[in-house]
Amino acid sequence: MVAALEAVDRLRSAGFTPARPVDEPVTGAGSAPPDRRWFAGHALLPDGPAAGVLLVARDGRFTEVRTGAEAGDAHRLPGVVLPGLVNAHSHAFHRTLRGRTHAGSGDFWTWRDGMYAIAAQLDPDSYLALARAAYAEMALAGVTCVGEFHYLHHAPGGARYTEPNAMAAALTEAAADAGLRLTLLDTCYLAGGLGPGGAAPVEGVQRRFSDGCADAWADRVADLADLPYRRVGVAAHSVRAVPREALRTVAEVAGGRPLHVHLSEQPAENDACLAAHGLTPTGLLAVEGLLGTATTAVHATHLTGPDVDALGGAGVTVCLCPTTERDLADGIGPARALAEAGARLALGSDQHAVVDPFEEARGLEAHERLASGRRGRFTPTELLAALTNHTCLGWPDAGRLAVGARADLVAVRTDSVRTAGADPAQVLFAATASDVDTVVVDGREVVRGGRHRLGEVAALLTAAIEPLWQAAR
Amino acid sequence: MVAALEAVDRLRSAGFTPARPVDEPVTGAGSAPPDRRWFAGHALLPDGPAAGVLLVARDGRFTEVRTGAEAGDAHRLPGVVLPGLVNAHSHAFHRTLRGRTHAGSGDFWTWRDGMYAIAAQLDPDSYLALARAAYAEMALAGVTCVGEFHYLHHAPGGARYTEPNAMAAALTEAAADAGLRLTLLDTCYLAGGLGPGGAAPVEGVQRRFSDGCADAWADRVADLADLPYRRVGVAAHSVRAVPREALRTVAEVAGGRPLHVHLSEQPAENDACLAAHGLTPTGLLAVEGLLGTATTAVHATHLTGPDVDALGGAGVTVCLCPTTERDLADGIGPARALAEAGARLALGSDQHAVVDPFEEARGLEAHERLASGRRGRFTPTELLAALTNHTCLGWPDAGRLAVGARADLVAVRTDSVRTAGADPAQVLFAATASDVDTVVVDGREVVRGGRHRLGEVAALLTAAIEPLWQAAR
Repeated sequence: MVAALEAVDRLRSAGFTPARPVDEPVTGAGSAPPDRRWFAGHALLPDGPAAGVLLVARDGRFTEVRTGAEAGDAHRLPGVVLPGLVNAHSHAFHRTLRGRTHAGSGDFWTWRDGMYAIAAQLDPDSYLALARAAYAEMALAGVTCVGEFHYLHHAPGGARYTEPNAMAAALTEAAADAGLRLTLLDTCYLAGGLGPGGAAPVEGVQRRFSDGCADAWADRVADLADLPYRRVGVAAHSVRAVPREALRTVAEVAGGRPLHVHLSEQPAENDACLAAHGLTPTGLLAVEGLLGTATTAVHATHLTGPDVDALGGAGVTVCLCPTTERDLADGIGPARALAEAGARLALGSDQHAVVDPFEEARGLEAHERLASGRRGRFTPTELLAALTNHTCLGWPDAGRLAVGARADLVAVRTDSVRTAGADPAQVLFAATASDVDTVVVDGREVVRGGRHRLGEVAALLTAAIEPLWQAAR
Repeated sequence: MVAALEAVDRLRSAGFTPARPVDEPVTGAGSAPPDRRWFAGHALLPDGPAAGVLLVARDGRFTEVRTGAEAGDAHRLPGVVLPGLVNAHSHAFHRTLRGRTHAGSGDFWTWRDGMYAIAAQLDPDSYLALARAAYAEMALAGVTCVGEFHYLHHAPGGARYTEPNAMAAALTEAAADAGLRLTLLDTCYLAGGLGPGGAAPVEGVQRRFSDGCADAWADRVADLADLPYRRVGVAAHSVRAVPREALRTVAEVAGGRPLHVHLSEQPAENDACLAAHGLTPTGLLAVEGLLGTATTAVHATHLTGPDVDALGGAGVTVCLCPTTERDLADGIGPARALAEAGARLALGSDQHAVVDPFEEARGLEAHERLASGRRGRFTPTELLAALTNHTCLGWPDAGRLAVGARADLVAVRTDSVRTAGADPAQVLFAATASDVDTVVVDGREVVRGGRHRLGEVAALLTAAIEPLWQAAR
């Protein structure tokens, strides 16, 4: 982390506003922390839309949420106020790929070649700069907690960094600077694929992803501890990248913490898993003990009926990533059927082709409509539940405007050309990330007036991304 | 139009900036009009992306487009400059429906009940105010020409207005105020549906849509003339709303002008047409002489192989409306197959659930990816061609940054959090309507710095929409 901290110093000396870590005390010792008070003309409360809502927070928690109130001395928020939104599936470094993978044939391999070219370049310094900017973009879009599915662990060639979790430390520092909570989903990635003869060895840049064996992965993860603004969870990259015998290790290491896994994103994964194990990927995860209420299956696009029943019956969360699933031509997963079978839903921006939770929510509903030929597949309330599923990242005390909950909120303008004329209760169907005005995380304003406390986030993105593409050429 | 003009006066007295009609002379008589000069760091020219582009216009046409140039005294545009974008399919009054049709069951009937409730309220005054705001929102998104598929012709109950084209006049005035060109697609709508016994009569609010018979429709259309900023085209609403014998009249009245038609948006239309005529809707249009190079088929979602061949072979334009087609659960049309069969493509926002040409272009590509399981279905160049297909609206001299073409341009910021890091040549895959900085139509700036010359467009939208919903309750 020395290198990463030096990078922060360089940014500070270049004029960027230093960010408070989220867990920094608000006031000096000796003085009682003041209440924070906000007034919302409209807000989406657990019981539904409400007008004239006073929200009071102390020490990062809501202590009062009152409807039909007067503004008084509270800070007036514009538009309609939502709970803090979650981005349940992020690969921060994929932010580099936006608007870079559609030239030439623009096929899957164009995309993957680009992704690997960037993965080959990153070090803890450059990853900190990139992730800070990517997370700040998320905060501007209303995200108060991100789940980072983190597999870029090691130096080029697979060598350990002196600090083996240097990359995880960079991500943690990035989230603190960007002002959102992080669930670090440390990802086990041991194989380059799943063939008829079993797991293929990792190759090329994949060596950076692999700890060599499940026990070495578990040892490294054991050094990661929870922090006030960071939870540690685990992930199995996929049944392609984690051999069968290692899947059980992942479940054991999880020990009830969030356990995420890419599941059946492409039909080829299903074919390979059936050929190697005689089971669907869902079936394999079930047999190896990976399905439970702390589990989040990401994508879950190509499922059988029994797969749907197994995921629903186990009470897993299924994280859809609609803007990625359409960009990567994955297809449309059975989200409505999963919900009816008992699964909870969440949403993630995954490769960040788009960072806009509203667009992900509309994508969830729209893809269902395209697949079913029917409107009204999820209610606005159900979509908001998916957007605020902080539980799947290990923060069950977040995601609602209610006394005792973490004091996260997102004020969405209703006076933009996009939102003008819409019913505030249906704002998810009109707003975009551009309409987010104020974002509060654990009682602290990270975004106000559409500006992030770090300043010019677009400049941070450009500064982080351009050198990576220049080096990749 | 007196009432409509009075509405403009009221707005002006309320502080709104009066807009110049697009055809108003730039300078007084006697002085030679000055050149307009812009400089673009990046621009998408007919031959591809270029750097350092000087664009010079006089009398609304480009007189010079030079690459590798210096800015000199030209106005520097930010980001990347595109040709003017087209919105080839608009129902202006549907803008009221955004964020209003997803409550309760949120099904198709929720949507249609809302649409009819609004249609029942409008008069020339309120339609002028609504369409002006809706068109200004389009201009802010980079649209320089809109095709209005106009069927709300008559007073409640179907009575003619004193000026029979009062509603068309309101739309024309709205486009002039908003600063974009209009193709008024005057729509023939005579039947309430297509049953086994033939055409059903119009009912309720549909009476406002109907001229009673094709000849009466044709007589009214004959009174509409082209203007410098308005072309007149025609439309057959659909094979459901236009009886077979009237379809030929529509083709005759078109006489080579743009002829648009809703085609096979839902499977039910195909079923009814097959039952009534023994032909698919495409087959019926072919037999009745409606397919040709001046024809635009809108949606074209549920087609047979022979339908695709017929549309492609006739050289029609197919206008996809991806954000509407997913909102209304229409399904995914065979856009790639149509292009390969010889059809040209265009894009429209239709019901304006979203007004963002970039999102429509991404939707075209993304829906193809979801349906095919493959990336890279349309190149960025092909998507830009669909976004700039002014020919299908009767303006073949627009839609490209080239000498002699109409001087339309759209500058898209590349320094937003959405576009930062993207290749300017792939900006369509990163930008949103929020990133449009400058819009020039026929040589005149309508939008600069993301501000429309009318001022607060969101306020215009709210002022136009809220009273309609209050009256509809």
